[in-house]
Amino acid sequence: MMVIMHESATTEQVAGVVSRVEAVGASAHVSVGERVTVIGVLGDREELTALPLEAMPGVERVVAILKPYKLVSREFHPADTVVEVGGVRIGGGHFCLIAGPCSVETSEQVLAAGRAVKAAGGHVLRGGAYKPRTSPYAFQGLGVEGLRMLAAAREETGLPIVTELMDPRDLDDVYEYADIIQIGARNMQNFQLLAEVGRRDKPVLIKRGLSATIEEWLMAAEYVVKEGNRDVILCERGIRTFETATRNTLDIGAVAVVKLASHLPVVVDPSHATGRPELVLPLSLAAVAAGADGVMVETHPNPEQALCDGPQSLPTSALAEYAARTRELAAWCGKTLG
Amino acid sequence: MMVIMHESATTEQVAGVVSRVEAVGASAHVSVGERVTVIGVLGDREELTALPLEAMPGVERVVAILKPYKLVSREFHPADTVVEVGGVRIGGGHFCLIAGPCSVETSEQVLAAGRAVKAAGGHVLRGGAYKPRTSPYAFQGLGVEGLRMLAAAREETGLPIVTELMDPRDLDDVYEYADIIQIGARNMQNFQLLAEVGRRDKPVLIKRGLSATIEEWLMAAEYVVKEGNRDVILCERGIRTFETATRNTLDIGAVAVVKLASHLPVVVDPSHATGRPELVLPLSLAAVAAGADGVMVETHPNPEQALCDGPQSLPTSALAEYAARTRELAAWCGKTLG
Amino acid sequence: MMVIMHESATTEQVAGVVSRVEAVGASAHVSVGERVTVIGVLGDREELTALPLEAMPGVERVVAILKPYKLVSREFHPADTVVEVGGVRIGGGHFCLIAGPCSVETSEQVLAAGRAVKAAGGHVLRGGAYKPRTSPYAFQGLGVEGLRMLAAAREETGLPIVTELMDPRDLDDVYEYADIIQIGARNMQNFQLLAEVGRRDKPVLIKRGLSATIEEWLMAAEYVVKEGNRDVILCERGIRTFETATRNTLDIGAVAVVKLASHLPVVVDPSHATGRPELVLPLSLAAVAAGADGVMVETHPNPEQALCDGPQSLPTSALAEYAARTRELAAWCGKTLG
Amino acid sequence: MMVIMHESATTEQVAGVVSRVEAVGASAHVSVGERVTVIGVLGDREELTALPLEAMPGVERVVAILKPYKLVSREFHPADTVVEVGGVRIGGGHFCLIAGPCSVETSEQVLAAGRAVKAAGGHVLRGGAYKPRTSPYAFQGLGVEGLRMLAAAREETGLPIVTELMDPRDLDDVYEYADIIQIGARNMQNFQLLAEVGRRDKPVLIKRGLSATIEEWLMAAEYVVKEGNRDVILCERGIRTFETATRNTLDIGAVAVVKLASHLPVVVDPSHATGRPELVLPLSLAAVAAGADGVMVETHPNPEQALCDGPQSLPTSALAEYAARTRELAAWCGKTLG
Repeated sequence: MMVIMHESATTEQVAGVVSRVEAVGASAHVSVGERVTVIGVLGDREELTALPLEAMPGVERVVAILKPYKLVSREFHPADTVVEVGGVRIGGGHFCLIAGPCSVETSEQVLAAGRAVKAAGGHVLRGGAYKPRTSPYAFQGLGVEGLRMLAAAREETGLPIVTELMDPRDLDDVYEYADIIQIGARNMQNFQLLAEVGRRDKPVLIKRGLSATIEEWLMAAEYVVKEGNRDVILCERGIRTFETATRNTLDIGAVAVVKLASHLPVVVDPSHATGRPELVLPLSLAAVAAGADGVMVETHPNPEQALCDGPQSLPTSALAEYAARTRELAAWCGKTLG
Repeated sequence: MMVIMHESATTEQVAGVVSRVEAVGASAHVSVGERVTVIGVLGDREELTALPLEAMPGVERVVAILKPYKLVSREFHPADTVVEVGGVRIGGGHFCLIAGPCSVETSEQVLAAGRAVKAAGGHVLRGGAYKPRTSPYAFQGLGVEGLRMLAAAREETGLPIVTELMDPRDLDDVYEYADIIQIGARNMQNFQLLAEVGRRDKPVLIKRGLSATIEEWLMAAEYVVKEGNRDVILCERGIRTFETATRNTLDIGAVAVVKLASHLPVVVDPSHATGRPELVLPLSLAAVAAGADGVMVETHPNPEQALCDGPQSLPTSALAEYAARTRELAAWCGKTLG
Repeated sequence: MMVIMHESATTEQVAGVVSRVEAVGASAHVSVGERVTVIGVLGDREELTALPLEAMPGVERVVAILKPYKLVSREFHPADTVVEVGGVRIGGGHFCLIAGPCSVETSEQVLAAGRAVKAAGGHVLRGGAYKPRTSPYAFQGLGVEGLRMLAAAREETGLPIVTELMDPRDLDDVYEYADIIQIGARNMQNFQLLAEVGRRDKPVLIKRGLSATIEEWLMAAEYVVKEGNRDVILCERGIRTFETATRNTLDIGAVAVVKLASHLPVVVDPSHATGRPELVLPLSLAAVAAGADGVMVETHPNPEQALCDGPQSLPTSALAEYAARTRELAAWCGKTLG
Repeated sequence: MMVIMHESATTEQVAGVVSRVEAVGASAHVSVGERVTVIGVLGDREELTALPLEAMPGVERVVAILKPYKLVSREFHPADTVVEVGGVRIGGGHFCLIAGPCSVETSEQVLAAGRAVKAAGGHVLRGGAYKPRTSPYAFQGLGVEGLRMLAAAREETGLPIVTELMDPRDLDDVYEYADIIQIGARNMQNFQLLAEVGRRDKPVLIKRGLSATIEEWLMAAEYVVKEGNRDVILCERGIRTFETATRNTLDIGAVAVVKLASHLPVVVDPSHATGRPELVLPLSLAAVAAGADGVMVETHPNPEQALCDGPQSLPTSALAEYAARTRELAAWCGKTLG
């Protein structure tokens, strides 16, 4: 790291920083400029990160040189991670279509959705049993009962299922039924939850937080991998900006950035990103073109009756055409399907 | 609510919306304009909110007329809520100074901080035993041991303590030691956690999420109050914007907006909002002037040695002067102290 | 529009709004709900927009029903606008590759770039003679001399040129040399400038402002079209958000939204959106897949020597491969080239 | 500046950067870390800023050490700048109340407003003759006629006037009538306009752009001062964020940051920042408490009839009480009035 001193910093203040740095076994190289002194610091990353050098007198700011994540970085692990689940591969040139309803409502609904996903050539069935809702008055999900409905749909269709975990106390239940455990956008920095799923042996899909930087998102993945679980899938689902024409702003650049910075697979959720069904296909195609390893889309047998996110769901009747077009582009991009 | 139809919506589509609305016992009033038809809908708020009318054919958008929160609204409860804890009153004209270290590190550190807060005329001691950290490699807090250190500081100083709860599994411990339970910014939409503290009888301080709208923040409070716990304190701590000169952007307008929209007390955390100690006093004064019911500030006996947020902490040696100035302005604004 | 009254609004206040509305020849329909009264207003859009109804006592807020733009809307003009310039067509299924240096530096540089663009199958040559620079100490462009260099490059390559106009006093010069007049992001709401180019008969390319909503961007286009110039091209170039991993955040959803809302062609500038050359190809492909009518990319014979935006420019040596891939995807999407 | 190389950068790439830097007369100091090499560069700031080092092979990123502004910085000119105009002083401990209508509509209106401002103890009369409006269908201002009405109000009240310049072609007119020339938020990066007013000898008030960083705002001021005009006043008027409860988000922290970073006076416009008259007083008090050198507020004899921004204007009948409270706090803060 580099410590940039104030223009008015004294020689004593510079010496203070140097001795503080040396006290933890790191080395300091002082470079005196015409107006500003800069101290280059070499040493153990974690040790140095913990030092509150910016609180020392005379320090203007501290610039990190190394990235704060390690295990999830491309430098640490140059080859693409391929997550395998129920015969499906995600990442490393394998393209994955995840689809299903926002929330599990009835056995019939989730089965109908599952059949449509299967018929459309989808690879994974999504559906929420625990729902994070802004309003305490809104439908909060069916809980374990919903997990069982998902499992029944898996049994019939053969599709592995991905479902959200919101509370560490539900982990055993979710672990029992899910094939992929989803950490939602609102829990992306629920660090205990991340650590818990990191100690299990099922793949984890981490949605990007509404206002999380790419670096923070990768740090969330680092929490999981650090505990031993290397099967992490990242999911870009739009960030919060000033624009209100779409529900969120799909950060398509993040897909390309993450593919360069990390070995983990990245999928895109165009449904939450836009909140408008007519935008789901163009943004799915954009995601594929930008290099995404999959898309995760909401579909419902009857969006007008949905208990959650109906307005942004594709009707299952439209799924086959959507899936075909998305798959064709994935093939054009050189991806293997599933 | 009002349903605004597309310019191209057909008569059948309008009729479809009307019959959907009437099916849940609400009434619909169709207003046909030159270019657009609008349907006014009257009925039970929760029932209507759950209807995915935007998914119906021909619907352009749905505009809510009523606010989504009820129990926390000024309309529902016109008088200011006054939270009382350990002899301290917050809200309703009572101004409160909350101060302490970011994280509890040692008995000595938290005691030194507590004495400084007491000496400076502060009312509540803050300190984190469970720390949400972006990096899994950073100091994560002392847990129950930290809670005990806080309790010891309370015993000596008489100051009630506020500390963060991150995981529902820690609730019994935090409930045992804390006087006010803090829900951190990253957990503002951890809805299970909100509901859990809503079922207890200790005051809850809810920090605004980094990218939470004021409405979402009030909905988080609604989660707590709905469960029966009416002692909620809101804490503005800066939002995430494009500006990087400060750690976050203190949304001073939110203080004034919330005072109008809700009866709950609002305090401001200038330390997290700015990340720079030299900005803590001016922004604290701004908070007081805007009508805040208190400030919550980080202070440390030795910021240069702090394990967390040292760079933004006031040294305890500067606390008395800071507190005096803040208190004087609160008095000028007509507030009673504590 | 709809006027939503406060819960506490009196009958007199409702009557006041009604009479104010009727005074400008519009009609008001009062709908009294259990808690809130709503007044639907029908009448001339411009007349109504000018009324400061939100300033009237008892008014909570005013909700617009009609979009504020008209001439640029898809409803007003359902068929795609096709802009024709120098034998090139943009929009309506015609895909366009615009490329060239950020700024015109020397005759040799712009000629070399022009030849590379031509050789790569590009359609339009871009290059700035007037440069908006954050710093007054940075290179500000060559002015008219730069325009002449662009014209010389056009003469040799046959490519029409697009260049930025920043000041109405330079309009005659820019009009003389340019084929397409660019309005930069920082001038997107320079309304005089918009009106001036609206009175000329050369196509106008309007870059989206850094923090402009899609609606404001379309209103900027409305300024131009209102004056009589219907040849407007919109250019998405990234918006400003909290994310710093890319220079801006490419709002890929905006491309799809604008294609639905307006008949005007939309192109994407992936160079300014990302600021990183390695992201230019994936984001160009994403733009094409999302439905963009073209891309506008920075290229320089020697990015390391560029006076402006070198770090984000593709070297001209890489242009042919980039263009080929982009063109192939455009063809896959069913576009005609140029 | 510091050049941080990629982990994979070669010795040749490091040497390339060094020779590039030395070619412009600067010196390079190479520091080889375990994983990353950093090159410290010392030399002429402008020369170095112009070098596109990030475009060189092997370079990861470039970190600036010195601030990009100079003339407006506190380091360059430690003492507060005091702008004097028509007997009023702004900055350096002198507090200034600027008030008036959003736009000049009639002689009567501006006179009535001027009298109210004078009676309330205000120091400067504001009013727009040229209005930047999002819609081409909205009232665009009275132009020179409006300037004359302002001058007449000055004549009667003795108050100096501040009015916005939008187009360099109007500069002679605005210069003739105005005492302070305002550059609006949408023109904050209209660099020609900034340079033009920098060549005149009347004070310039620069509103912060909707999405301008503090650094960019100071750079806009640098454009003016560089041309020789040192009488610049900065005006914070809210930035664009995701929050929609207020029209913009008042960045109160920016006031304190600018007071530290620059010697120029800073005023706050709470009317545009919030868009809600009930928030104007609390946010004005917050501005004063944070250290602002003045406030600039919209007032209208009859907000319900205003052609522009009526909903956010204080009625002139409420101005005296507003002004008294604001002034009292300014005095409490140790400011001299006017």
